[in-house]
Amino acid sequence: MQETRAAVLDALADGPTPGPAIADSLGVSRAAVWKHVEALRAAGFEVASGDDGYELVSVPEFGGPAVEYGLNAPFEIEFHDSIDSTNARARALAAEGRSDVVVLADEQTGGRGRLDRTWTSPSGGIWLSILLRPTVPPASVPLYTLAAAVATARTAREAGVEATIKWPNDVLVEGRKLAGVLTEMEGEADRVSWVVVGVGLNANVDPDALPRAGATSLAHERGGPVDRRAVTQRLLSTFDALRGDPDAILPAWRSLAATLDQRVRVETPSGTVEGRAVDVRAPGALVIETDDGREVVTAGDCEHLRSSDP
Amino acid sequence: MQETRAAVLDALADGPTPGPAIADSLGVSRAAVWKHVEALRAAGFEVASGDDGYELVSVPEFGGPAVEYGLNAPFEIEFHDSIDSTNARARALAAEGRSDVVVLADEQTGGRGRLDRTWTSPSGGIWLSILLRPTVPPASVPLYTLAAAVATARTAREAGVEATIKWPNDVLVEGRKLAGVLTEMEGEADRVSWVVVGVGLNANVDPDALPRAGATSLAHERGGPVDRRAVTQRLLSTFDALRGDPDAILPAWRSLAATLDQRVRVETPSGTVEGRAVDVRAPGALVIETDDGREVVTAGDCEHLRSSDP
Repeated sequence: MQETRAAVLDALADGPTPGPAIADSLGVSRAAVWKHVEALRAAGFEVASGDDGYELVSVPEFGGPAVEYGLNAPFEIEFHDSIDSTNARARALAAEGRSDVVVLADEQTGGRGRLDRTWTSPSGGIWLSILLRPTVPPASVPLYTLAAAVATARTAREAGVEATIKWPNDVLVEGRKLAGVLTEMEGEADRVSWVVVGVGLNANVDPDALPRAGATSLAHERGGPVDRRAVTQRLLSTFDALRGDPDAILPAWRSLAATLDQRVRVETPSGTVEGRAVDVRAPGALVIETDDGREVVTAGDCEHLRSSDP
Repeated sequence: MQETRAAVLDALADGPTPGPAIADSLGVSRAAVWKHVEALRAAGFEVASGDDGYELVSVPEFGGPAVEYGLNAPFEIEFHDSIDSTNARARALAAEGRSDVVVLADEQTGGRGRLDRTWTSPSGGIWLSILLRPTVPPASVPLYTLAAAVATARTAREAGVEATIKWPNDVLVEGRKLAGVLTEMEGEADRVSWVVVGVGLNANVDPDALPRAGATSLAHERGGPVDRRAVTQRLLSTFDALRGDPDAILPAWRSLAATLDQRVRVETPSGTVEGRAVDVRAPGALVIETDDGREVVTAGDCEHLRSSDP
């Protein structure tokens, strides 16, 4: 959000404030204050104007200015009611040289998961992609996938939903898929140019609108909708804190993992690995105890096996 | 090169062959053979036509069809007399979904090295970028930089120039810079979508045309020009063999390295590391013995120190 507009919003939130007082304190004209108030109303903020001045009555449930307002993370939000793919848009912003932008949408019409799989993204979800430019080698990038999964699972738990993480990139509720993470990057062999961390979170989505058997949503698990603005803000600020404290990511991931101590079958590019998942290792590899010893798997599709499975 | 044209070229190389015989053996019309011969002449191939038929007299020194003709590697060559940057063009081809294409140029007007540095690329060099789509995680990509450096150094040695490799991406002759490698990629956190391996080789370039103090060229070292077609073909076929045999890359790199057993100073994103370089480790890290023990460096600028340096 533009800086003066954010300052106007802060002033309105303090209770009824006369327009001239706001203009004076910000060093802008009264006409400018009026224009910002009108723009905020257009963005869905309810602003009352009475004898005592302007007052913020309510903040919209979702949208760019709503999520930026009160966000405790240095991200600019670019909101779309509907978009092809937030990751694709974030990649385009990367090509324009941008950074620290979050592309957020109510609906994606061409959402994707790992390996070009379709990710159904109806209206009511939280579909977002965070564009970063960290000074790290490409090998470290899987850590951002783990950080996003941790941020999503923690945020779900704060919303009362007992989420866990399935390696490498899914957030589950009792085995049902609640969210996924898709991390993309471009760069030189020893330094990334940009990273896009995409999160698809089934927030206020009817599970029947999701084609995947065994999918769920925050609203379904809680029996009622969540405040998407608050959930998005918590997710972003938690992710931001984790990227600033990389050593905290693996321990946090382990404490939320559904995959550890499970029998798993992982389809990797070089074959199937089956055994008991015993640890996750930097920057995001799964350690599996097989009949032939320990194997470290860096990529693949992971299936949790029940003890009765072959 | 288009398949029928390549077959026509093969037929011409076998000695004088009548056009009708070529047409019959390839199952095309005589007019088609004539058109291919004309196209080959336009591309610089010298084709004599006499009573006994057509005969290949000479192959052009450089160019797309010339390098494709007799190339022992499954790459298509896209040649440009002059181009902004072969890596940029290869990235554009990647965005179009292409693979196994080599962008080759006689001159680059906007050539780049690592970290966006300028790479001066006058006419007479071998400026090429190889577009690949291997099934590997981003962490493995530095191996392609090493493979390209090995292929370049070996090819230079076959041309009689005692090249060595400076970690991570330079090919030197007695400390003078002969070639550099710039590897770029895009992909998901656990799987690359494409890799572009760029090689800039000062082939038939006057070192005075290079702004870098201490740069050299194959022609300067040998005292005469190289056959750029043959050099490019050897470089590409050696690289192709190495990518098919990844276990051979590190041993080959070690045997050509100027950096090992040297005192080095490496400027990394997290600080300076100084000591004796003792090994290179998969997928491309340098192991340095410092006063405080061994450090493994994955990215940075490396300077070779003389024993008298501080």
